[in-house]
Amino acid sequence: MIMDTQSLNAIFRPRSVAVIGASRREGAIGRVIFEKLLDSDFNGPVFPVHPTAAYVHSVKAYPSIRAIPDRVDLAVIAVKRDRVLDVVKECAKAGVKGLIVITAGFRETGEEGRRLEEQILAVVREHNMRMVGPNCMGVICTDPDVNLNATFAPAVPRRGRVGFVSQSGALGVTILEHAAKLNLGVSMFISIGNKADIAGNDVLDYWRDDPSVEVILMYLESFGRPQQFIRLAQDISRKKPIIIVKSGRTQSGARAASSHTGALAETDILFDAMFQQCGIIRADTIEEMFDFAMGLANQPLPRGNRVAIITNAGGPGILAADACENLGLRLPRLSDEIQAKIRKHVSPEASLSNPVDLLAAATEEEFRYALSCVLQTDEIDAAIVIFVPPVVTDPIKVAHSVSMAMEGSDKPVMGCFMGVKGVASSIRELQRRGIPAYEFPESAAKTLRAMVDYAQWRSKTISPPVTFPVDRAAAADIIEAAVAQQRRRLLDHEAYRVLQAYGFRVAQTHICRNWQEVQDAAQTIGYPVVLKLSGESILHKTELCAVRVNIANESALRREFDELVEILARREDADPEARFLVQEMARGHREVMLGIHHNPKFGPMIAFGLGGVLVEVFRDVVFRFAPLSQEIAEEMVQSIRGAAILRGVRGEPPVDFALLTESLQRLSQLALDFPQIGELDINPFIVAPDREQCKIVDVRILLHPPKDKTV
Amino acid sequence: MIMDTQSLNAIFRPRSVAVIGASRREGAIGRVIFEKLLDSDFNGPVFPVHPTAAYVHSVKAYPSIRAIPDRVDLAVIAVKRDRVLDVVKECAKAGVKGLIVITAGFRETGEEGRRLEEQILAVVREHNMRMVGPNCMGVICTDPDVNLNATFAPAVPRRGRVGFVSQSGALGVTILEHAAKLNLGVSMFISIGNKADIAGNDVLDYWRDDPSVEVILMYLESFGRPQQFIRLAQDISRKKPIIIVKSGRTQSGARAASSHTGALAETDILFDAMFQQCGIIRADTIEEMFDFAMGLANQPLPRGNRVAIITNAGGPGILAADACENLGLRLPRLSDEIQAKIRKHVSPEASLSNPVDLLAAATEEEFRYALSCVLQTDEIDAAIVIFVPPVVTDPIKVAHSVSMAMEGSDKPVMGCFMGVKGVASSIRELQRRGIPAYEFPESAAKTLRAMVDYAQWRSKTISPPVTFPVDRAAAADIIEAAVAQQRRRLLDHEAYRVLQAYGFRVAQTHICRNWQEVQDAAQTIGYPVVLKLSGESILHKTELCAVRVNIANESALRREFDELVEILARREDADPEARFLVQEMARGHREVMLGIHHNPKFGPMIAFGLGGVLVEVFRDVVFRFAPLSQEIAEEMVQSIRGAAILRGVRGEPPVDFALLTESLQRLSQLALDFPQIGELDINPFIVAPDREQCKIVDVRILLHPPKDKTV
Repeated sequence: MIMDTQSLNAIFRPRSVAVIGASRREGAIGRVIFEKLLDSDFNGPVFPVHPTAAYVHSVKAYPSIRAIPDRVDLAVIAVKRDRVLDVVKECAKAGVKGLIVITAGFRETGEEGRRLEEQILAVVREHNMRMVGPNCMGVICTDPDVNLNATFAPAVPRRGRVGFVSQSGALGVTILEHAAKLNLGVSMFISIGNKADIAGNDVLDYWRDDPSVEVILMYLESFGRPQQFIRLAQDISRKKPIIIVKSGRTQSGARAASSHTGALAETDILFDAMFQQCGIIRADTIEEMFDFAMGLANQPLPRGNRVAIITNAGGPGILAADACENLGLRLPRLSDEIQAKIRKHVSPEASLSNPVDLLAAATEEEFRYALSCVLQTDEIDAAIVIFVPPVVTDPIKVAHSVSMAMEGSDKPVMGCFMGVKGVASSIRELQRRGIPAYEFPESAAKTLRAMVDYAQWRSKTISPPVTFPVDRAAAADIIEAAVAQQRRRLLDHEAYRVLQAYGFRVAQTHICRNWQEVQDAAQTIGYPVVLKLSGESILHKTELCAVRVNIANESALRREFDELVEILARREDADPEARFLVQEMARGHREVMLGIHHNPKFGPMIAFGLGGVLVEVFRDVVFRFAPLSQEIAEEMVQSIRGAAILRGVRGEPPVDFALLTESLQRLSQLALDFPQIGELDINPFIVAPDREQCKIVDVRILLHPPKDKTV
Repeated sequence: MIMDTQSLNAIFRPRSVAVIGASRREGAIGRVIFEKLLDSDFNGPVFPVHPTAAYVHSVKAYPSIRAIPDRVDLAVIAVKRDRVLDVVKECAKAGVKGLIVITAGFRETGEEGRRLEEQILAVVREHNMRMVGPNCMGVICTDPDVNLNATFAPAVPRRGRVGFVSQSGALGVTILEHAAKLNLGVSMFISIGNKADIAGNDVLDYWRDDPSVEVILMYLESFGRPQQFIRLAQDISRKKPIIIVKSGRTQSGARAASSHTGALAETDILFDAMFQQCGIIRADTIEEMFDFAMGLANQPLPRGNRVAIITNAGGPGILAADACENLGLRLPRLSDEIQAKIRKHVSPEASLSNPVDLLAAATEEEFRYALSCVLQTDEIDAAIVIFVPPVVTDPIKVAHSVSMAMEGSDKPVMGCFMGVKGVASSIRELQRRGIPAYEFPESAAKTLRAMVDYAQWRSKTISPPVTFPVDRAAAADIIEAAVAQQRRRLLDHEAYRVLQAYGFRVAQTHICRNWQEVQDAAQTIGYPVVLKLSGESILHKTELCAVRVNIANESALRREFDELVEILARREDADPEARFLVQEMARGHREVMLGIHHNPKFGPMIAFGLGGVLVEVFRDVVFRFAPLSQEIAEEMVQSIRGAAILRGVRGEPPVDFALLTESLQRLSQLALDFPQIGELDINPFIVAPDREQCKIVDVRILLHPPKDKTV
């Protein structure tokens, strides 16, 4: 748990390594790792440890770690499970600083394994060692000063700029092979296995200032410390892109079925919110992660979303254009000036508007010329070059031409060389030259989209969150009293008061016990009024018909009051705390919902969406973690699809967006001030163009159940 | 245009072929085609035609097609563009029945080319010849009685069950190479090029009863005769799957910005509707098309959507599970009984609930056993087998085991063998045995989803469309009068009358010219009433504030009437035809919209969605082509996301779905009876649980502009 990057050097950049469990038997994991260490030409001595053998793979072996006369930085442990604890203890005695425990059979297999893992971790902590694993496939560092390959993966990636963390060993193997196949250079690869000591966050932190890692790839199934991850990732991803594949359906625990915000805050939404807020590039598949990595590791970021497509085949050009436009990239028509310039040296039948179709007979020289013309204009921000080998032109020569045209340009170019025969080598040629090359145009388009999004995120200002002057003490009194009484739900009038204390625009509301009070309240507020039932057990008021709106006068009020009394009387679980709530009639014409969903592990999230039944049916809701900056709050309001309704349809004026943005920021402040709040639903917040007409007319606040109180 | 499958045999199954333009120069296209024909061991003589050469590639050559003493079925033409017309004329004289014109430079290059193409087509028609191309890359037929490879594509696919039509020559090359790489067997491949004579529909029709083609793949950029395509595809896809990649952003022409249905009927929606209605499997990319084809060409259709995942690696298993669930496939927990059965022969630590994780050390025997247990239960409908090669187990042996376990089973199994080294050969082994094998689990999941959808479509009953008794003559009088007067828009009262004639539930509506009539109408209808402005130029009534609802009594009515008179007076484009419309106040509580959008080329489409502003903002609308069967109408109503609102939220009863379904079918009947109707918008149709409360309160009918009248 200690964030201490220095101590990780013993594992990631060791000066000497021992392999404990280095067997003489070929194919045994310990033996494979030992061989890989020698093959990678590790910059330091590697000592095999074997109980009886005098040598392993022709290298002098030692019966135990303590028998090695030299100082050992890193021990790679591949012994049987039941020997691991003893071996770790010996390593501690021998002054080893880093461990990679390959052996499996720990927490992942059940209770007994979990206990053993904890015992090992205790030894590691006690002796200030650091450990990767157990149940992992090892570590690679291609820094020429280190040259460490302490894995048993068959493929060896070439040196490069990508750092890779994998929570799955099996995917680690696939990933290294895929990287090798794509010619994607790797700086470090870390299979974190059971994450007993070193987890994804530690590696992220280590890479924060490591210049050898320029792009970070992560395959994760779970987050141990998500709030720390958010802080780290938010910081790092402004300097280097982080691409994540997050898999695994999590059992997000019991969520109160009664809650809107809760039901909407499904786990995947939660991760999406988290990744959006950290500028993380989420890949849906391993394949997509590599597509993105090829672009981000080798090409400059685009300054905008205008793409030119240069092709020698109509069909693939259309496929690429479709893919770009579907992803929201633009394909501007090239200006007449540029078209005329390109026309000088290409076929007179070529179609140059964009896609630039040079026709099947296009030579490598035509590709080079057209691409450099396009890259020199300020009409486009990026280019996709598509080549389908005809009988005549040599794909390798086209690959060279593309690379030549890119010299001196700071715009990203994606290659898409289609077809198999003779193209594989040209794809490799492009990849060797740092030009991402794809087999199908859709991958190139998706990668450009990810790069555009990332570039936008990097350029965004994020101001510090605003702190509004609020009456925190008033809210604290209410919330703390409820906690003391072990109540999970604030009473309606308490909830309204909390909101008022935090400066929300709440509809004028009176809580009444009897007709006399109801009558007086209506008088005070002025007709028309709203009459509601209020009480701990009355959740969805509309289901009970417990909300009566637009009551025009006293006789109508009396009628509604009597009906509600009757409804109350009919209920089996009659609530002695039931009250009547008289409220001013809000005159806004749109409904939105605002909410807090506080997952104890992830921290408080703020929700925004259209109100009423729409939020449930269309799930048109956006979530972000508190604290919210002004920019994030604005982005939330604008990013729901229903924002068009709030902006005004058919000539209506827009609702008061500034108020919505401010309300979200106030909600963020409330959520952070009171972690006791588990869920809060403001639904509906009735909004209108005129701020005076914007009123919160219903709110529900749930506290964490007692066991969560300490969070 | 003639649907005559017999005549196509001259091209697809010829008994003799001539290559005109067979050059002695190696690498020339004509020469390459000639060699391919010989290499494919064509079952018949192939004659090279060359103006001067005595022989080509060691085969006696002829100076012209007419100089060949034998009868020639098919001529493949690869001469210079300007010679093509003469060559085609000579072919006609020589009694050639089929032509493949490889040569490019026709319609695709502009006006001159288009004229030349039309001249050629005229000759073809005149002499009852058939032609593929021009501007195509040829035809392949792997039927051993034929063995025709009349293309210049480098790759040769192996014989198999897939028929492929490509509108793009360049993609044709890619496609053939990809098929070869994936070991996907091809029955026929046809590059249709400019489709001057033979188009996709002709090929579809040819394959309808061709037993050698079991799966049809199409790459299309445009539809020449979409209505014919719909009829053909609807019929064929109930027997064999049709997978389409449709690309190309079309310029769907000027759409009246004033129309809702029109604005929503964007072209891609149109194609989606068309494909859905024909049971066509739409692939987003060429890659996906092949993924689907591997599944559909080799595996039985699943009976349901329950998937079991069998893996030896946790991470990829989770990725597959995520992908399945995201696509709406189910991963049921395997019963204790089955788990106990599997447990007998696998590792005690294996996790068997589903995904079945056999752990890294799983042997090929464990894979075989677990897979056959799963295939034998009736708890699942399909399986995905994931294998990541560990150090010990041999991927090829696992591939054999998978194939053994599948013997006697009628459930589809997808393979996903991850990693590159040593796996490529096992993937090929799977593919050779007809087991679709993918590099990443998401592709397997997507393919299963496509197969489940297709199986559902095949099993669906589609009854013939119902014909309701309607007063067609009354509608015809109104519409024909408007056409005669060259009016584009029906007046409000006309539109209401058309709907009434077709048995729609229309709110009681009176059209009035003055206060007296308004007052009388309100009296007749009974308060509360709605008052609207009506007139040709008043389109979006709400923008003008020209709709006043819930008018409780006569004094309120007078106030509203006076205001509307004032609004009318203020308008610059005062409409002398303006009327007042008094309508009963509909009491339903949900709004839907129904519409017709009649694209002259594609035929009339029926639209259904939520009404009011929602239809615009959420675009939650479904389109289907008329005629609508009962089943399609039901599916339309249920398939919008907002259907949940209509089914009732928070304990409300559902609206009258039977009425909605019937109204859609009536609309379909109206659209087919009157092709003059270009657009029709019923918005809103106010609906409720009680049929008596369901009322259409606004409708707009636009006729086709005069130039389209003949359609």
